[in-house]
Amino acid sequence: MPFAAGTPVVIVNYKAYPGCVGKRALDVTKALERAAAGKRVTLAVAPQAADLLRVSQASSVLVLAQHVDALAPGNGTGSTLAEAVAEAGARGSLVNHAERRLTLADIDATVSRLRALGLASVVCTNNVAATRAAAALRPDFVAVEPPELIGGKVSVTSADPEIVRSSAVAAKEAHAQVRVLCGAGVKTGDDLAAALKLGADGILLASAVTTVADPGAALAELLRGLP
Amino acid sequence: MPFAAGTPVVIVNYKAYPGCVGKRALDVTKALERAAAGKRVTLAVAPQAADLLRVSQASSVLVLAQHVDALAPGNGTGSTLAEAVAEAGARGSLVNHAERRLTLADIDATVSRLRALGLASVVCTNNVAATRAAAALRPDFVAVEPPELIGGKVSVTSADPEIVRSSAVAAKEAHAQVRVLCGAGVKTGDDLAAALKLGADGILLASAVTTVADPGAALAELLRGLP
Amino acid sequence: MPFAAGTPVVIVNYKAYPGCVGKRALDVTKALERAAAGKRVTLAVAPQAADLLRVSQASSVLVLAQHVDALAPGNGTGSTLAEAVAEAGARGSLVNHAERRLTLADIDATVSRLRALGLASVVCTNNVAATRAAAALRPDFVAVEPPELIGGKVSVTSADPEIVRSSAVAAKEAHAQVRVLCGAGVKTGDDLAAALKLGADGILLASAVTTVADPGAALAELLRGLP
Amino acid sequence: MPFAAGTPVVIVNYKAYPGCVGKRALDVTKALERAAAGKRVTLAVAPQAADLLRVSQASSVLVLAQHVDALAPGNGTGSTLAEAVAEAGARGSLVNHAERRLTLADIDATVSRLRALGLASVVCTNNVAATRAAAALRPDFVAVEPPELIGGKVSVTSADPEIVRSSAVAAKEAHAQVRVLCGAGVKTGDDLAAALKLGADGILLASAVTTVADPGAALAELLRGLP
Repeated sequence: MPFAAGTPVVIVNYKAYPGCVGKRALDVTKALERAAAGKRVTLAVAPQAADLLRVSQASSVLVLAQHVDALAPGNGTGSTLAEAVAEAGARGSLVNHAERRLTLADIDATVSRLRALGLASVVCTNNVAATRAAAALRPDFVAVEPPELIGGKVSVTSADPEIVRSSAVAAKEAHAQVRVLCGAGVKTGDDLAAALKLGADGILLASAVTTVADPGAALAELLRGLP
Repeated sequence: MPFAAGTPVVIVNYKAYPGCVGKRALDVTKALERAAAGKRVTLAVAPQAADLLRVSQASSVLVLAQHVDALAPGNGTGSTLAEAVAEAGARGSLVNHAERRLTLADIDATVSRLRALGLASVVCTNNVAATRAAAALRPDFVAVEPPELIGGKVSVTSADPEIVRSSAVAAKEAHAQVRVLCGAGVKTGDDLAAALKLGADGILLASAVTTVADPGAALAELLRGLP
Repeated sequence: MPFAAGTPVVIVNYKAYPGCVGKRALDVTKALERAAAGKRVTLAVAPQAADLLRVSQASSVLVLAQHVDALAPGNGTGSTLAEAVAEAGARGSLVNHAERRLTLADIDATVSRLRALGLASVVCTNNVAATRAAAALRPDFVAVEPPELIGGKVSVTSADPEIVRSSAVAAKEAHAQVRVLCGAGVKTGDDLAAALKLGADGILLASAVTTVADPGAALAELLRGLP
Repeated sequence: MPFAAGTPVVIVNYKAYPGCVGKRALDVTKALERAAAGKRVTLAVAPQAADLLRVSQASSVLVLAQHVDALAPGNGTGSTLAEAVAEAGARGSLVNHAERRLTLADIDATVSRLRALGLASVVCTNNVAATRAAAALRPDFVAVEPPELIGGKVSVTSADPEIVRSSAVAAKEAHAQVRVLCGAGVKTGDDLAAALKLGADGILLASAVTTVADPGAALAELLRGLP
């Protein structure tokens, strides 16, 4: 497991943002790497599949895929194998992101495949019930993000602190070893501090860091919230 | 357009085959490159998104993506942007492969996005009617593959020569500039020769070359069929 | 073919509107039937699958399904067979509506299955290129609806008359017998008159008639536009 | 809740079987009704959406939908509202059948919508982990069916009794009130008896009853296994 126990986790999802594709994916990663240097945080970034190798080769940040398909090697044109992202340097993958929902059967199969390959799994969910269900599949992380708050101005930690608190409790009831992230609107050091205080082990974020002029400064602001 | 006019085209789809992932994608590509050297053929290979950069950086073979999403840069976690595959060295993409069927609206949008970026589009279809419809969207290539023959022992050029002939006619009626490929079961030089004789501009293939012990030898056998 | 040649066509899609489900589907249908009585128009309504029998049994309006699956009888839990909607009184089906996009292969298979059962096919499309492609599959109708105008205040016939005119031309070039509908924002008699004048054979509409207090009056207003 | 506590449950899924569509759906239902008359069992049948009204109007068997969409009334052409199946006489729905897998978010939303409307939810799963996850969403039933055994000759109760036993335990750990069904290959009275003995509350079946010449006799044989 590439994520050290007990260290807060910050995952930055590059989505398909124009500023985070190709060479710019690497530029952003280097800026984030500098901002996190020396801080007690596990920073991970999630570029597109086509950018994984470029980012993993030229930086030392932990790299995750945004999605892998549940299928085993064989047929599957247009899919992304867990084996392929591993060879491209990814140490795990987001699973079931709000922009790439999967069937329950595929979430389960994906988590199992990632586990078998020694890769970390971060299953995204939309509410407490789905968090509890996802945790029952025994992934490494569950990341709860209320869809209506994603990309918004108000952090989930302010807009709906109860979903963070309840998700952390529900997930750990279902699987004691799971870690819980929260996301949606998270931007500031205060938001990160609030997330940790509500019982989360870290945050999953995107636009706050990746659609701004200075991603490094945005991350530095956020990391002010580390304990 | 990276495909020279008037030259037969051979596209090798690496699918998610275990022998064509990661470092092995590059090994296979180098073997295919050697087999095609000096032959009057445009060879293209289609690795997974995560392998595009590795293959394009270290070989001079034309590289295609297996799939790109129709969406423009922005949200779209887990998707593959045309911009991203282009930066990773792809010169075009398969679209609507039998293992990754798309909606009509997305095929249209994908072909348009590829065109706008100067990338080649190869739209896969399953019969003459779908070939006619796909050609009406004005992609660079349509590749007809009867699903029941894919991965099989008998080449489409023997099992159903009429679908190749009729697809070539129908496609060009719908869009005079489109080129037509055929695939499914294609293995030998005779199969390639038959495809060209039936009016196809080349072939799309996978298992015959990528699941054998010696991909280079398999491609060399196939290229015997060049005029 | 249940649609008489040369008669303008008006199809009302009930979607999943609360006012058009269950018993209310029948009430709305009866109101529309009265409004169209004696007019030179072929009126058809498209309720949900679960409401087809109720509506077809108790009214004489032409009934269409909103969707049928491409599959043949056999497995397919949760799908809707063309045979099932036919037994429930439907005389055809919408195919590939903006809210239920299908793969190209499934559009083709669905059109073929409907044709084999003597049912009418109305393939929805989003632009001129997709209209041309859909017409190449030889359905009975293509219905072009620019997605950005669906449910809007301005009729496609005012906002983008060229898409109607060009779709009518492109569709008939691809398949001379196809009829062309347009939709999106269509509300008034003037809109219907404009559609017919632009070369359409009729209109496909929903909210203008089905989300108002008096659907019959709304349809009567619309039918003022008949020649 | 239409399922009486403590009574074994047998749900017959009509899928898209040719012998269970339209008028034949009603014929089969009447035969099953006669076979179950006077037995201590809750029999339910799951016809296609288009057949719900026909079956519910003319029989007194409990009727379930095969699928409902998660969406609330509004847009959603081609979908099946929970409200619509309720008005057509369904008392609940299968959810996430192997032939209609849903995203985790949609399973959760569908179970919630069914519950809000007083309808029973039967969530299908493929293994113990997915059963535990599904039960965490608090549906009325979870029905575990190993996909490789569906439609096969050997009953899950013989081929993999452990999946039945473990699913029953895991589901009730996750949600004490949930009832657990098993399915796949179930055909005989002995299979039903074994299922109940392994901790299941009943069975979900299809082909054994619906693709045979005499569905009533097939069900009668099965009900021999009731305690």
